Amino acid sequence: MNKRTAFFISDGTGITAGALGKLLEHFPNTSFTQVRMPFTDTLEKIKSARTSIAQAKDEDNARPIVIMTLGNLELRSTLKESDAYFIDLFNTFIDPLSDELGQKPLRGAGIAHSVMGSKYNDRMEAVNFTLNHDDGMTNSGLEEAQVILVGVSRCGKTPTSVYLAMQFGVKAANYPLIPEDFERGTLPAALNKHKDKIFGLTIKPERLHAVRNERRSGSFYASLDNCRNEIATAENLMRHAGITWADSTSRSVEELSAIILEKIRRPA
Amino acid sequence: MNKRTAFFISDGTGITAGALGKLLEHFPNTSFTQVRMPFTDTLEKIKSARTSIAQAKDEDNARPIVIMTLGNLELRSTLKESDAYFIDLFNTFIDPLSDELGQKPLRGAGIAHSVMGSKYNDRMEAVNFTLNHDDGMTNSGLEEAQVILVGVSRCGKTPTSVYLAMQFGVKAANYPLIPEDFERGTLPAALNKHKDKIFGLTIKPERLHAVRNERRSGSFYASLDNCRNEIATAENLMRHAGITWADSTSRSVEELSAIILEKIRRPA
Repeated sequence: MNKRTAFFISDGTGITAGALGKLLEHFPNTSFTQVRMPFTDTLEKIKSARTSIAQAKDEDNARPIVIMTLGNLELRSTLKESDAYFIDLFNTFIDPLSDELGQKPLRGAGIAHSVMGSKYNDRMEAVNFTLNHDDGMTNSGLEEAQVILVGVSRCGKTPTSVYLAMQFGVKAANYPLIPEDFERGTLPAALNKHKDKIFGLTIKPERLHAVRNERRSGSFYASLDNCRNEIATAENLMRHAGITWADSTSRSVEELSAIILEKIRRPA
Repeated sequence: MNKRTAFFISDGTGITAGALGKLLEHFPNTSFTQVRMPFTDTLEKIKSARTSIAQAKDEDNARPIVIMTLGNLELRSTLKESDAYFIDLFNTFIDPLSDELGQKPLRGAGIAHSVMGSKYNDRMEAVNFTLNHDDGMTNSGLEEAQVILVGVSRCGKTPTSVYLAMQFGVKAANYPLIPEDFERGTLPAALNKHKDKIFGLTIKPERLHAVRNERRSGSFYASLDNCRNEIATAENLMRHAGITWADSTSRSVEELSAIILEKIRRPA
């Protein structure tokens, strides 16, 4: 397999540049070594980056990919003297956007991910809310939730809730559906008045069995029969309650969150 | 203030396109309305997107910014018939990268953020680990942690740990420094054998006072005097134990995480 090194070089956190690293997944025939260099904000650090780029080129026998966000023009041009394939987010986006908007950009380091950024406090508040309303921990404050995820134990509610909060500032509570709900055949009473913001997650029995087995190997809880039963009953319960759900089996938290946001923002 | 609408239109989650939305923070004199349209993978949805773009243009009296990741060529060219300023990540990145790598890209929808993506399982495992090792909840398994954050209560340990896990797949435990540690004047005993992976967070007393007051208004715990005391003692304790720390007062979780990753990956 071809080898390449991808550098993410930024005068700030490197998060924006790093996000573009995801686009490398479109080239599965190349094996990428990803190297992050945040806070590269002095000429000395740029020179050290150039040394690393040159070494990677020798080792891979191919020039590295350099994805960069550097506000300072001197740092930018010095870095570009390296032998590499450059994706310069300032050149590519900020400068043309500046023309389009008729406005000079802020060029300081780390602007995109500072606490001054839009919605930072909302996001942190949502993370706190979500962690305090994980796994049906409390019913108090549920009226503040923007979404309440329900589903059987270990179907992916917690990581999805946390992602919704951290990434989008959505206050996401989650509530497990457990054997006593199945026996009663209805949603937990505390959720009845919040039906309009409940979203369900389900999962394939085989996958749930594997996930639960990692934690409690050989238990009744983890057995394939019990997983099948719980899932069938949970889906019935959600169907009767008119709750939309999504299958988490082969979906990432990013995909599930995008589906859930669609539902929240454009209710049917 | 100028108004513009920024559309993020993707055949997948829209996360990669959305990440570039952060670059809009470089233009603080424009007020952006951000509209996400994930899973835009049919001609019908593209047409509906075009209608929204035209409406936004009328309302803002300026053409919208459209940041797009669409693998399908027909969908892409149909969307581009709209009157908007386009940032086409396929055109700008994937196609040139394809030339550079001498390799055709995968063009299916949603490749970047599928569960097939690199390291997805590691990330989810790290999130579980982190939530199970929040706030000194347990000492068991600390040897598996890649970093252990310490600091006074409410200085930002939890959201930073969760971000490290979710974004980077780092198993990040966190441990509060509490009055009994201050009296004893040493780190909690459970941490002694893990000193090499401890990272400290601190915060300005005024900010801590404000944060604690939101939860327990008027308490001794939240008083400015107590906050000053706890912070001074915690910093002393960390100094004596030789622990590196960062001030969270004006840093985002993205910035703190980038600092911590630097420390983990390139120990002094």
